[in-house]
Amino acid sequence: MKRVYNFSAGPSMLPLPVLERAQKDLVVYGDAGCSVMEMSHRSKPFAAIIENAEASLRRLMKIPDDYAVLFLQGGASMQFSEIPMNLARQGDTMLYAVTGNFANKAMQEGARWGNAVAVTTSKADGFHHIPKITADMLDQNAAFLHITGNNTVFGTTYNTLPETGKVPLVADWSSVILGKEIDVAAHDFIYAGAQKNMGIAGLTVVIMKKALLEREVDPIVPTMLRYKIAADNGSMYNTPPCFAIYMAGLVFEYLEQEGGLAVQEAKNRKKAELLYGVLDASPIFKNAVAEEDRSITNVTFTLPTEEETKAFLAMAEGRGMTNLKGHKVAGGCRASLYNGMPYEGVETLVECIKDFEQGLRK
Amino acid sequence: MKRVYNFSAGPSMLPLPVLERAQKDLVVYGDAGCSVMEMSHRSKPFAAIIENAEASLRRLMKIPDDYAVLFLQGGASMQFSEIPMNLARQGDTMLYAVTGNFANKAMQEGARWGNAVAVTTSKADGFHHIPKITADMLDQNAAFLHITGNNTVFGTTYNTLPETGKVPLVADWSSVILGKEIDVAAHDFIYAGAQKNMGIAGLTVVIMKKALLEREVDPIVPTMLRYKIAADNGSMYNTPPCFAIYMAGLVFEYLEQEGGLAVQEAKNRKKAELLYGVLDASPIFKNAVAEEDRSITNVTFTLPTEEETKAFLAMAEGRGMTNLKGHKVAGGCRASLYNGMPYEGVETLVECIKDFEQGLRK
Repeated sequence: MKRVYNFSAGPSMLPLPVLERAQKDLVVYGDAGCSVMEMSHRSKPFAAIIENAEASLRRLMKIPDDYAVLFLQGGASMQFSEIPMNLARQGDTMLYAVTGNFANKAMQEGARWGNAVAVTTSKADGFHHIPKITADMLDQNAAFLHITGNNTVFGTTYNTLPETGKVPLVADWSSVILGKEIDVAAHDFIYAGAQKNMGIAGLTVVIMKKALLEREVDPIVPTMLRYKIAADNGSMYNTPPCFAIYMAGLVFEYLEQEGGLAVQEAKNRKKAELLYGVLDASPIFKNAVAEEDRSITNVTFTLPTEEETKAFLAMAEGRGMTNLKGHKVAGGCRASLYNGMPYEGVETLVECIKDFEQGLRK
Repeated sequence: MKRVYNFSAGPSMLPLPVLERAQKDLVVYGDAGCSVMEMSHRSKPFAAIIENAEASLRRLMKIPDDYAVLFLQGGASMQFSEIPMNLARQGDTMLYAVTGNFANKAMQEGARWGNAVAVTTSKADGFHHIPKITADMLDQNAAFLHITGNNTVFGTTYNTLPETGKVPLVADWSSVILGKEIDVAAHDFIYAGAQKNMGIAGLTVVIMKKALLEREVDPIVPTMLRYKIAADNGSMYNTPPCFAIYMAGLVFEYLEQEGGLAVQEAKNRKKAELLYGVLDASPIFKNAVAEEDRSITNVTFTLPTEEETKAFLAMAEGRGMTNLKGHKVAGGCRASLYNGMPYEGVETLVECIKDFEQGLRK
């Protein structure tokens, strides 16, 4: 069967050459005599896979040597708890910028552990902009400031990072990482679920200043949730999600071959500009996000009525475009334009939008 | 390249038809128009995958309706913490049978949360037998008794379950599950990392009495570690490890087609008997486990000297047999004979053992 244009917010489209490579090597990997799925994580072939994956990611993102790279499990949602448990003591003050659904969930988990404070929120305008943050707004003794770098549900993003003074900046970049250049050194801690631009679900990547590994951790914190344990054991305190790490490694290698993140960012901006341009010119389709805060990876849009929304989604589905329905919290439509989405996919979407405007219904 | 006989304790050999099926469908799955790795976890095709996987596992293991099945992340090591956090309040007494390396790790994690008590240990004889447990040995008010059903490192197993009275029985069956028939109803809680008989690393399966979901959980426990949340959300509170669940589903389907767990158990017993028979008759190879406590999935053995051990491992490697080296904690050799290991693999191993005895060195 033909492959569709899958606009899912994640898991989402992977580059076809990566999938084809994984398919070719699935039963027997190189001269290992077995599938990657069957390899002992303590074996030489797997050691090469995980080491190469980390090295490739470090080159792609220009990760400084004083940052650790960890391959973990549990998704961004597990990090909502792991970050407080490792960077704060019970009861400590932690700061959150509440710019949407997942930012709020992160704060709620923080509140299980300590004094989770919302320093700002964009709830009043339905999370359609990113509020500015400056150091004078922040308790300078706080354990960290947490931001959700890109809001997958509403389609906003931090195009400028907050000024935090001496408060460590922690950012969830799940839905942008590898889709544009991110200044790692401007952060103290970056995390991302892999199932958007990095690979497949079941892997979470943490990039953190090594100095933060030395913060004292309460004895109650499980060994499995301790960054220091993961770092000291090369992300293999126990069996890691080997195949997900392998897939991420294939993605990293592919992106390096394609010229790196500047190339991806240019491609992604071109896709986003095409779509935003058509939406802005449309009499019936509408994107409600403040222009300077628009995400290049998740483009949200609405139609005047629920009935038209349904009709448009059905029309798009009929033309081989899936998962354009918005998140249940936001409603409407959403097109996620990760690295795996080709320009032709956005052209097909734009054509569908124009045809719908002109009264075509299929 | 030819596939080797991989005796790894996990990740380990998968049935070849399962790998070939996954390979065939890797780029485009059925009429979904995308890979399983690219599917939204909220999509219809993935809903069918996870539902079918659970239904198949329930049939295979004859899981009663009053037990929940959860697909989680983090491996058995994460369960070492999740179990206390969900089944006990902070400070409560929890009982542990310390029969080896992972049993001890489980207790250490329990001690972060409450009063973790070792009711018995087989440390004195190097963990080479399974001590009997009867209800009168147990504090009947304890939150649970934890056992490691099969000891992967030393090669022992519970061929008879402990008598616990009214104390809930919690068992780690990571290295036996699906390799023999397990009486689910005789347990209150079973858990297993998938990377041995169930599929690939990055998935952990929990089978628990639904009544245990109603135990009060301390507010400090992260949402991601709460069984009730996982159960109420069909294991999809956040993005689950989709591809690992898909692979497990393929394994379950394959095992059903092959005739179920009684068939696997018979095959596994035949493999284990062949190997134990040769070891027992050998003048130089030795298995030190009490006969009634021998594991059918992990067979440990030693040679008289370190030099001979190395020579034997090299000889086996040269004949296409990998990962026969024992766990670093135990030393010596170990052959893991999971469902994916064909009888011919054990025949090849046995032939190598005999040739080595007779002075052949390659």
